[in-house]
Amino acid sequence: MTRVFAARPLLQNVATRLRIDSITSTTAAGSGHPTSCMSAAEIVAALFFGEMRYEVANPRHVHADRLILSKGHAAPLLYAAWAEAGLFPREHLLTLRKIDSDLEGHPTPRLPFVDVATGSLGQGLGAGIGCALNARRIGSDYRTYVLLGDGESAEGSVWEAASAGAFFGLDNLCAITDVNRLGQSRQTQFGHDIDHLAVRWRAFGWHTLVVDGHDLGALEAAFDQARATTGTPTMILARTFKGHGVSFVENRDGWHGRPLKPGDEADRALAELQRQLVDDGGATFPIPPPSRPDEPATPATPPAVAPLAYTLGQMVATREAFGTGIARLGAVDPRVVALDADVKNSTFSDRFEAAFPDRFYEFFIAEQAMVGAAMGLAARGAIPFASTFACFLSRAADFIRMAGVSAVGIKLAGSHAGVSIGEDGPSQMALEDLATMRAVPDCVVLYPCDAVSAEHLVVEAARHPGPAYIRTSRPKTPVIYGNAEAFPIGGSKTLRQSERDVATVVGAGVTLFEALKAHDLLAAEGVAIRVIDAYSVQPIDRTALEKAGRETRAILTVEDHYIAGGLGDAVSAAVGDRGVRVVRLGVREIPRSGPPDVLIDRYGISAAHIVAAVRQL
Amino acid sequence: MTRVFAARPLLQNVATRLRIDSITSTTAAGSGHPTSCMSAAEIVAALFFGEMRYEVANPRHVHADRLILSKGHAAPLLYAAWAEAGLFPREHLLTLRKIDSDLEGHPTPRLPFVDVATGSLGQGLGAGIGCALNARRIGSDYRTYVLLGDGESAEGSVWEAASAGAFFGLDNLCAITDVNRLGQSRQTQFGHDIDHLAVRWRAFGWHTLVVDGHDLGALEAAFDQARATTGTPTMILARTFKGHGVSFVENRDGWHGRPLKPGDEADRALAELQRQLVDDGGATFPIPPPSRPDEPATPATPPAVAPLAYTLGQMVATREAFGTGIARLGAVDPRVVALDADVKNSTFSDRFEAAFPDRFYEFFIAEQAMVGAAMGLAARGAIPFASTFACFLSRAADFIRMAGVSAVGIKLAGSHAGVSIGEDGPSQMALEDLATMRAVPDCVVLYPCDAVSAEHLVVEAARHPGPAYIRTSRPKTPVIYGNAEAFPIGGSKTLRQSERDVATVVGAGVTLFEALKAHDLLAAEGVAIRVIDAYSVQPIDRTALEKAGRETRAILTVEDHYIAGGLGDAVSAAVGDRGVRVVRLGVREIPRSGPPDVLIDRYGISAAHIVAAVRQL
Repeated sequence: MTRVFAARPLLQNVATRLRIDSITSTTAAGSGHPTSCMSAAEIVAALFFGEMRYEVANPRHVHADRLILSKGHAAPLLYAAWAEAGLFPREHLLTLRKIDSDLEGHPTPRLPFVDVATGSLGQGLGAGIGCALNARRIGSDYRTYVLLGDGESAEGSVWEAASAGAFFGLDNLCAITDVNRLGQSRQTQFGHDIDHLAVRWRAFGWHTLVVDGHDLGALEAAFDQARATTGTPTMILARTFKGHGVSFVENRDGWHGRPLKPGDEADRALAELQRQLVDDGGATFPIPPPSRPDEPATPATPPAVAPLAYTLGQMVATREAFGTGIARLGAVDPRVVALDADVKNSTFSDRFEAAFPDRFYEFFIAEQAMVGAAMGLAARGAIPFASTFACFLSRAADFIRMAGVSAVGIKLAGSHAGVSIGEDGPSQMALEDLATMRAVPDCVVLYPCDAVSAEHLVVEAARHPGPAYIRTSRPKTPVIYGNAEAFPIGGSKTLRQSERDVATVVGAGVTLFEALKAHDLLAAEGVAIRVIDAYSVQPIDRTALEKAGRETRAILTVEDHYIAGGLGDAVSAAVGDRGVRVVRLGVREIPRSGPPDVLIDRYGISAAHIVAAVRQL
Repeated sequence: MTRVFAARPLLQNVATRLRIDSITSTTAAGSGHPTSCMSAAEIVAALFFGEMRYEVANPRHVHADRLILSKGHAAPLLYAAWAEAGLFPREHLLTLRKIDSDLEGHPTPRLPFVDVATGSLGQGLGAGIGCALNARRIGSDYRTYVLLGDGESAEGSVWEAASAGAFFGLDNLCAITDVNRLGQSRQTQFGHDIDHLAVRWRAFGWHTLVVDGHDLGALEAAFDQARATTGTPTMILARTFKGHGVSFVENRDGWHGRPLKPGDEADRALAELQRQLVDDGGATFPIPPPSRPDEPATPATPPAVAPLAYTLGQMVATREAFGTGIARLGAVDPRVVALDADVKNSTFSDRFEAAFPDRFYEFFIAEQAMVGAAMGLAARGAIPFASTFACFLSRAADFIRMAGVSAVGIKLAGSHAGVSIGEDGPSQMALEDLATMRAVPDCVVLYPCDAVSAEHLVVEAARHPGPAYIRTSRPKTPVIYGNAEAFPIGGSKTLRQSERDVATVVGAGVTLFEALKAHDLLAAEGVAIRVIDAYSVQPIDRTALEKAGRETRAILTVEDHYIAGGLGDAVSAAVGDRGVRVVRLGVREIPRSGPPDVLIDRYGISAAHIVAAVRQL
């Protein structure tokens, strides 16, 4: 389809108004990145007023085209476009960066037209992959657009996403790079030598176009070509000038992240832009609607999952139960999808793939693209479980941070946590993942010890609206819970207790079994201890811990994790302000290769160490 | 130079012996990745016995060629090569993966021939960039080789490093990709369709060769070509077969990370390999030595830095003092280098660049490549300071984790920490960096509050042999310390104290000034509090904190960081086992854009909140 586009001089007025708004709002704020907005004004004008199909009053419409502003520092331009479209009064732009305005320095989903927060460069394309995969999942024809900067193209995450986009053949995805030549501190690696970028995108399998990014007709034609391209995504490399439209800032060093000064400087710039406006007789640009009416993204009541059928004492690794659990959940909820990074046969996500191949996405060894795509999927109504070895999720730590800022409901599953993996050695042992995940506010952190709790926690994670992390272990562990036991987020299980408990041992995952062993060893000596399974590390069960703190002399935490940032810190944060003694057992040095049991003992988290610590109390 | 190479059939014997050793050691260990070793046996044989110049008995020789095994799971092959070269007896290979052997599941620098730990895929090339840059720094002709797998080429970090290698024109760097087609769980994205990889490497500016990776002559010729190439690094894409040499495993699915079973299975494989050996009359392969004698990488005594000349009350941001500090240090120590990711004008590393342009490396917006290169530089004797916004260091979290495993002396500087950055919003506010860095055992975590402490802590970080992190702030803060004050790692400063102190407030960075304000406000009411500057967050000053815990009713921690994993947890870990009450003030939700002072108050870490919390105690 070739569109009959609105006359270009009139659309040029829109671009000019977006520039004006970008300057006035940043000047009013006293900070921001007007020149990074100005380079992309034509791109955004062409997208918003002709190319994209959406409902202004309903930006989250399930079938509306998406725009992800990967170069998030151009936020004022995005805000100006929505004001121009009529979502809110233009005057509201002057609240930019004010404490009570949702028009923040970089976009966040506090705004209804933002799917994922951006501002950490190189993340938008991954989210775009997720949005495009979601369209495929729900059978929608909505298209996804991602606007990148040239500077951020240095991020490896961009190339992971590029590779994934081509692998999945996402012809419903169109990216545009605003090649304005100038980074923050200097010229980018290639400046305006745009062919270097073109050859890279082509090498990564994208249909690649090079256009003058200030030529609305060229942009329109490029969008037409993108829409006509099948089997692969399109990258439009748009040659632009930073600060375009204002002669004394355009294409000059030293203007990154710098608003124009109120008074003469801003006035001169605005006057120059005003002169570029032509009489358009009040022309408006009809916005094409989505091809289908809106519909709810989530069902009114979450579907029930089939009951479990484990037997007590059955030996099952929690990672395996995770795989079974997502497949069981996927059978009743079409929103559930799974992503993996070439370890599906270790994380057991291959159980999901076997059952639902259309909802399984292989990202190969590219964790950032995987988590980025999960963010995009979650933002569009899917419930994505992304799994890999827990240590390799650290590769996507910045994406996880931004998922927290975005408050999107990604579900991460990290397997092979801790020294209990054994001989593969420290590079494969996640011993800092709890610290990373706890440092995401509102991220639920779950750590099952057996198959029953693992499966229930998969369902809990899916029903939780925000981000959730499930930590699983490599070794098989015995089932200790009945199939119908409930594991609410924020709860815990007190597995051993008596009126004579001298101490409380809090374990989770593999260390829970060390705690139970220690309980029996001490019981044989006539010493009673309380044992708590802290399967919900965040939020943690403050009530149970405070009670234990009152009723026993001290709390001993035991974790297959470094001593910093994990279970011990979580427990301590819950009860530390009451003056409860908290003694921590955890890994205190870089471990070595060796058998799991040997390592658990050598690094101080075995039953023997718990017994010794209780005696010392 | 074209070498007269040892006759190929004899070198083929070496490759076959490396295969035999890879099988016997993994079979003895009962775990490991023999087939991933077997695909690369010719590559490693050609490198070790003809191409590389080194001294067997002195692997850390300053001018010896380097080999980084980016595909770290092929560790048994690397170990076998060093045994073949004579560094240790072949029988020692049978200790693979045993608890007291340094021949771990993946290589770590516990071994003298390993520069950086590998095993988290996609990291070796970044370290290789660092090794190659170091050769340039010291004017050495040593060459750096990096052996990658095809699976790990999906990692964006590989492409960041690729771009950096071309940008720096590192013709002393040669990478080889062992394209054995099979990942862990399935065929890689491209399998043996090697042209897809070739076009990518060429697009990223590398001299790229495609060879039969089992043809020693072809490999030798490729290494010759690489050595003859100027101005850019070389990538040799070697087409290989996983498990090559043993017919019943070669090029088959299901053999990743699986040793051959002792008995018939291993015996059959070994017999097949034994038959491939030819009579070589005991031929040996002379190893070319480095072109220059070894020399110490570090001076006997660290050079003295020029004294500071700040005045009390002078307003200087700690990030600015960091920049001044590394430049001051660089003036007396040629080992000091600086790396940045397009924010040198915000981190003030541009002060170092201005003084020492040859020792400043711009990585553009590619934090993984930056930190990876810092690891390689540090492993080779440089003292690299890598700086960016603290939040963007999270992009390199997995590299930082592996720097911990490697125990290399990288120095990271994260600026713009916390809500005190103001209007840019949550995507730019590091509020989890202390959690990340504390979870690296032995990583020193420093957090200066003023310019004097910042400059001294730069020197302390440089002198510390392991990894160190310096957290700096955006706003200007007053100088409160005298120029000659000492700031030892693990220390603290008690800035206010009396015998009547009811509570101790522990701050660091910007919150220290809130604590001092609170002190004065409370003093006006007749309430005395102790104020401690915890500039060393890890290790933390347990002695001073325990004393404060004994002498006052509670400790109140105040941090511009999320409540999890930061200063509060560090303090609590130090004194929590004594039953000292620790009350934490920190950021408990995703913050918004706004003025720094407003945010500091809104998120509960201002002087007013400290006063309220002390009153409540």
